Order: sequence, then C-alpha cells, then structure tokens
Amino acid sequence: MSTRAGIVVTGTEVLSGRVTDRNGPWLSERLAERGIEVAHILVVGDRPADVLAALRFMAGEGLDLIVTSGGLGPTEDDLTAAVVGGFAGREMVLDSSLEGRIAEILRPLMARWEGLDPEAIMVSNRKQAVIPRGATVLEPVGTAPGLIVPPAEGREGPTVVVLPGPPGELQPMWDTAAETAAFRAAAGAAGDFESATVRMFGIPESEIAASLRDARAAGIDIDRMEITTCLRRGEIEVVTRYDRGQADLYRELAEHLRARHGDTIFSEDGSTVDEQVAALLDGPPQRTIAVGESCTGGLLAARLSAPAGASKRMLGGVVAYANSAKEEVVGVDPSVIERVGAVSVEVAEALADGAIERFGADVGVGITGVAGPDGGTPEKPVGTVCFSVALATGEHLTRRVHVPGDRRSVRDRSTTIAMHLVRRALRGDLEGSAVGEPAAEHRA
Amino acid sequence: MSTRAGIVVTGTEVLSGRVTDRNGPWLSERLAERGIEVAHILVVGDRPADVLAALRFMAGEGLDLIVTSGGLGPTEDDLTAAVVGGFAGREMVLDSSLEGRIAEILRPLMARWEGLDPEAIMVSNRKQAVIPRGATVLEPVGTAPGLIVPPAEGREGPTVVVLPGPPGELQPMWDTAAETAAFRAAAGAAGDFESATVRMFGIPESEIAASLRDARAAGIDIDRMEITTCLRRGEIEVVTRYDRGQADLYRELAEHLRARHGDTIFSEDGSTVDEQVAALLDGPPQRTIAVGESCTGGLLAARLSAPAGASKRMLGGVVAYANSAKEEVVGVDPSVIERVGAVSVEVAEALADGAIERFGADVGVGITGVAGPDGGTPEKPVGTVCFSVALATGEHLTRRVHVPGDRRSVRDRSTTIAMHLVRRALRGDLEGSAVGEPAAEHRA
Repeated sequence: MSTRAGIVVTGTEVLSGRVTDRNGPWLSERLAERGIEVAHILVVGDRPADVLAALRFMAGEGLDLIVTSGGLGPTEDDLTAAVVGGFAGREMVLDSSLEGRIAEILRPLMARWEGLDPEAIMVSNRKQAVIPRGATVLEPVGTAPGLIVPPAEGREGPTVVVLPGPPGELQPMWDTAAETAAFRAAAGAAGDFESATVRMFGIPESEIAASLRDARAAGIDIDRMEITTCLRRGEIEVVTRYDRGQADLYRELAEHLRARHGDTIFSEDGSTVDEQVAALLDGPPQRTIAVGESCTGGLLAARLSAPAGASKRMLGGVVAYANSAKEEVVGVDPSVIERVGAVSVEVAEALADGAIERFGADVGVGITGVAGPDGGTPEKPVGTVCFSVALATGEHLTRRVHVPGDRRSVRDRSTTIAMHLVRRALRGDLEGSAVGEPAAEHRA
Repeated sequence: MSTRAGIVVTGTEVLSGRVTDRNGPWLSERLAERGIEVAHILVVGDRPADVLAALRFMAGEGLDLIVTSGGLGPTEDDLTAAVVGGFAGREMVLDSSLEGRIAEILRPLMARWEGLDPEAIMVSNRKQAVIPRGATVLEPVGTAPGLIVPPAEGREGPTVVVLPGPPGELQPMWDTAAETAAFRAAAGAAGDFESATVRMFGIPESEIAASLRDARAAGIDIDRMEITTCLRRGEIEVVTRYDRGQADLYRELAEHLRARHGDTIFSEDGSTVDEQVAALLDGPPQRTIAVGESCTGGLLAARLSAPAGASKRMLGGVVAYANSAKEEVVGVDPSVIERVGAVSVEVAEALADGAIERFGADVGVGITGVAGPDGGTPEKPVGTVCFSVALATGEHLTRRVHVPGDRRSVRDRSTTIAMHLVRRALRGDLEGSAVGEPAAEHRA
C-alpha cells in the first residue's frame, strides 16, 4: 500500500483569504514526486485547538505522514511546535544549543534595522528554540528551525514534518527534511509510480471527457490509472498516474488521445508553452523577441521575462496603453487607428511590426483588445482581443479571438493565446487552422 | 455563539498543486463579511471517500455550515452532489425541469465548437441535473447548478452549500446562495463583529510582535480581540477583529500602534497602496503616469494597468530589458550606462525621465536591478534594485534598495517598493526618511 500524506497549512492570514497559500500546492507536488499520495490539504488558523483538530483528523484517516507549514515564527500566535509536541505525546524542552545558533543568525539582521529592542527580540526567539524532546531539528534557513516529530515511544500515528511558512525558507528546508532518517522511516517504501502529462490548447474540456469514455468503450482499461483533466490558464492538462508496470496501458491511452486531438496537443513531455517558446527562440537559429501590448498591460512582457536567463532572448516591450503611445512610442500609423479602431487586427500587426523595428528584434508580438469591464461595443464586445506575431521576414500570424471571463481572466488568458501563436509562428506554421477560442470553463 | 463554517475545495488538480485555488480564500472573505467564522479550508481530491471524510470531519468539529467548491462538472470524476446527498441523508433524484434548463444553456455553446458529439454532451450534462431530493437549486451561471443541502428531516448536522469550481461561476452564485431562505436558516444570527486593518511598509514583523506585547503591558487588554499580523508582498498587515462593543479598546490599540510606528503606517481604512496611488493620480490635480522598467520586466506596468478604468491615468511603459532598449527606446544616454552601469540610480532616473518624455506623462517611474539568479557582482549583488520617481517639475525621489528573496520575489517586491515611492512622491514627500528595505520575512 502506498504512503499517504496530509498537509496542514497554518496561518489566520491564509485562512482569512488575505494571503494566497503557495506552500500547500508546492508541498503536494514534492510529495507526489516521491510517490507519496496526498489525501488532504487543510488550512487552519493560528488557534491551537483548530491545528490539533487538523492533526487528529489526518491521523484518524490513517495517514502516514503530515507536513505542516507556518506557525514557527517569533510572535505569540505562532504555536505549531507546541501543538505538534502535544499531538505526538512529547514534552517541550529548550534546546540551548539551538537557541545559540538562532542568536547568531539574528545578530547581523538586528544590525540592519535601527531602533530595535534587543531584549524583545531575544524573548521572541528563545521561543523558537523550545522543541518536542526527541524531534529531529532542521537548521533554520531564516530564523525558524524546522522539526521532524515521530510519535512518542509506544504511540501509533503519523510522523509530522514541521516547516516554516515563508516559501523561501520552507522550500530549501524541505530538501533537507526529505534526506533525514526520520523522514525516510515515516515515508516508507513509496510506490513505483509514473506520471505523464498531455497538454492541449483550443478544445473544450467536455471533449476530453468524451474521449476518455470512448477509450473505455474501446477496451482501454483506463480505470487502472488515475486520470485527471484540468483547465489551467486556458489550456487543458490531462495528467495520468500509473504503476510503472502499466506503461503499455498508458501508451494505448496516449495513442488514443493523439488520434482524436492530435492538432491541439502541444506537449507530452511535461514542457509548458513558455518553455517551448524559450527553447524555440534559443534556436538554432537563435532569435530575439519584443512585444507591443495594449490590453495585457505588461503581462506578456512579464511572462517572457520571467524565466532565469530571459535577457538573452527578450529585448523588451512597449506597453502602449494610450493611443498616443501606440502612435508615438511604437509607431502605429494614426490613420489606421482612425479608420479601423485601436482594437483591430491591423493595429495588432502594426504593434508587432513596431516592436521589431523599435527593439531591433527578430520576432515581434502585438496585442490589442478590450479587457473590460467598460469599453465594449456591439462589434467589439468585452473580451475581443486581436493578436499578431510578426517575423523579420515580414510574415505575420494574426488572429482575432473572443476571450471569455472578467478583466483579470481576459488579460491573463490573452498572454496564453499569444504564447501559443508565438510558438506556432516560430515553428513556421503561419497558416493552418485558426487558434480559435481558448477552452471555455465547462468544468465546474 | 457565533456561526462557524468550513470550506471544502474539491479537485485533484488543486490538491496536486497544479492549479492554485482562488475559491477557498474568496469564500473565506465573503463568510467573514457576514460575521461567520471560518475554522478550516480543506482541499481534497475527486475521490468520494476523501470528500465524505472532509464533510464528516467538519460536522464532527461542530460547524454549522459547509461551503464546497468544484466537482459539479460533466466529467465522471465530478461527484460532489452525490457525496453531499449521501452525507445529508437525501436520495438523489433527476430534476427534469433543471435538465431542460441546462440543455437550453448548452445549445448555443455547442454551436460554437465544431465536431462535437451531441449525444456525449447530453449524457454528461444529464448527470448535472441529478440532485439531492429537497435541496434548493441555484440556477447555473455556466452549465452547472449549485445546491443548498440541509440535513434530511430528523437528522442533525451542518447545511452544505454546493458551488461550482470556476471562480467566474462560483462568485455570482454565492451572492444568490446567500440570499436564500435555506442559507439564512443555516447561517443563523451571526455575531456583530468589526474588522479593522492597519497596513505598514518598511519595518520588520518582529517589531509588531514587540509592540503588541508592550500594548498588553501598558494595560490594553488585547486578548479580548483577535489580532493577526502578516507579511504580504513586503508589506505588513495587522488585522483586528473585535466585537462592536469593544470599539474603544480597538481605538486604544490603534493609537498605540500610531505612536510607535506612525511613519510606516500607510493605511488604516482598508485601502491598498495600489488604490491610494490610483486615487492620488486621479487628483485633483489629475496626473498621468508612465513606466520605464528593466528587471521587473513589465510587472509594474501590469500592476498599474490592472484596475478597471486604469487607462485614464496609465499611459503605458517601456520594458527596457536590453541595454539597447534603454538607450534607443527610452533615450537613456549610453555614456551613463558606460560610466556607472545599467543598474544604478543614474539609470533609474534616466528611465523615469524617459518615461515622462516618451509618453508625455506627468509622472515617470524608472526601475533597474539584478533579479538574479545570475548577474550579481560584489558591488551589486542579486537583489540590488534602483528606483526613481520623476515628476514633470524635474524633481526625483530616488532609492537604491537590497530586495531579499529569489528572482520571483525580487521582481514582485520591487513593484511594491515602486508603488510606495510613487505614493510618497505624489504626496509631495520627496525627501524624508529612506524607504529602506522591505520587511524581511521574519515570520515563519
């Protein structure tokens, strides 16, 4: 039987919705990579009773491992270590050596801030050195140590891995935690699973549901695999988890999907469209890119410049929000805007051409549209977005698309559509079928 | 006693970490607005046993209300309605009138896609019309109906509000749900709570912890209120929830915080720095803004253009990633880059000036820095970022800051620092104390 785990994210600020949790999803992916099945992610406030209830629920579900994030800080509402100690039946003790190491970490930090009360800081941080007796200490990345807490001698129950809340501390500490003997003992012999991802763009999710039913009808025993489909920024992702012994079965399913949806499948190796665009630009031949964007307001430039090392391919962009900016900064002919309006395939092409010309790039992208909520007309309702990818040869790949959703969705999904058009243009596919509308959210 | 609620977010794609959940946080904020205390947010996969375990856990914790999101779609792994029906002790029945209404919704959608199998779609969507007998139906916003399911006659337990997963469907349906008699019966008479938020920029979180301890020592009975502090994109937020009868107590606390941290407090009315910058630009006097940004790659322009109606104040920006773009598109003097390097306060000022000049704006913002992971030097390590805000008068507010964290954090937090500098410059505070480093993540 495979190892099952739960994740407990503590923090009133996460529970209240004011802060988006990044740790639950990140830990879930890390556990899955080790073949450990995640059954639940539970977000709780900083109340000890609620944290304890979460741990007891997961123990009651028979989970082998619990990972917690948060509640290790210096403030009084940071109580995870004590609650986990009680849950595991272990007494809380001061680890003076750890206290000394935390003090060493704090010394340079304190020098950076003026007017701090050193006494207050020392009291706050002694608290961080009080740990369940017998726990494995994970050295602080920031100022908070992590812990691995197995049940006390003679007790049954899950081992708890206690990690700090800031992702910059939690992530490196996870790597350390996973190498400890205490973790390995709890994680046990995880199953021998493979996971494969097929990514598609330009079809509705209901089509995938139908294809899976047809696969079963055609005799492919898909119920022996765990298949999930999801919409992700306008793309559809089909993730299949299967026992390594079932590789032939997965190959049959992949073949079935390719036969039905071949032209919409853009990735079977886990790569994202962002990675594919970066690789295509890096060549050979190596090419540079620049952007002239309006309704996306900088999001496409931000997306192209997000990966480490982006500067070798990304020269820059103009966010031409005002019409005057389209004309004066990117060089769009004012008479074109006058004649067909700022939201038009003509202006999208002129923005793409202007990006090439202004930045001396090999590839230019233009986007202009109505993100809403205002500015829609009967001919160009909210969600109307025009895209163009220009190559230095003078060729264009240009589309007008109706993008569904609210302002935020229209802006975000438009960057996904642009990335797919750039990918196609870089692969030399300047004609072919229309990209069409992104997958509508049929799934509820 | 106040009403307590739990939120169950279903979806293997959320549990696995591939998709970020927006519904849990959103629902939590909506429940809090109604004075309903959220005890837990639980993310589960699409397995019926795990969804049922989540509902039973919350019932066992004595919660009055459970809100679920997701698992109402047409695919076979969408099982929430049936699980909730079983949990509430209610038989599942086909609502033929609802089936007909869903069919009406699907008709135009089907016409938009070519080559669909109408039969497959009808089978998929009949499933969506099978509901627990006696449940209140919430009409579909997309294709999936929502449900309010009280416990069956003679049973005890929480009422379950069943909502679809896509935020664009869930959010409008929530408003409908909250007006129904079934919801009101379950939510009961919620407490009479107030919530107040103090936002600060430029101090470490441990200082707030010390201030709260001092407040208690000074006789302010803070334990009669629920106070949470959190770091949010480099800002610190102190949120206090208190019974309306305790307003004087909260006023004492707010006065205490103001006395100690006055110059770092930028908001006490719930407003964000983004909203304050927008309001300051909208005037009087009305002013326009433009950006010349390098290491943030478009994120500042995207942030300024995010609100509805941004086009009246935001003219645009140049993402000057390559040095050639800084020179040719924004007009930075090449000899300056030659002399002091692209990451320098001089180039930040030139980018701000160039933004004003190129876009004809009243206010210009320049950002240049080392986002990493490569490109750092001993003098300018990764995280070194230079900012300048220029006014049309020729005045500047310019800072060099060391921003902590990885590439993603440096890019994101730099936009927060820039927003605070813009705010200060627009308020006419061009000198004063240095903005300093953003709050380090002391909290764990």
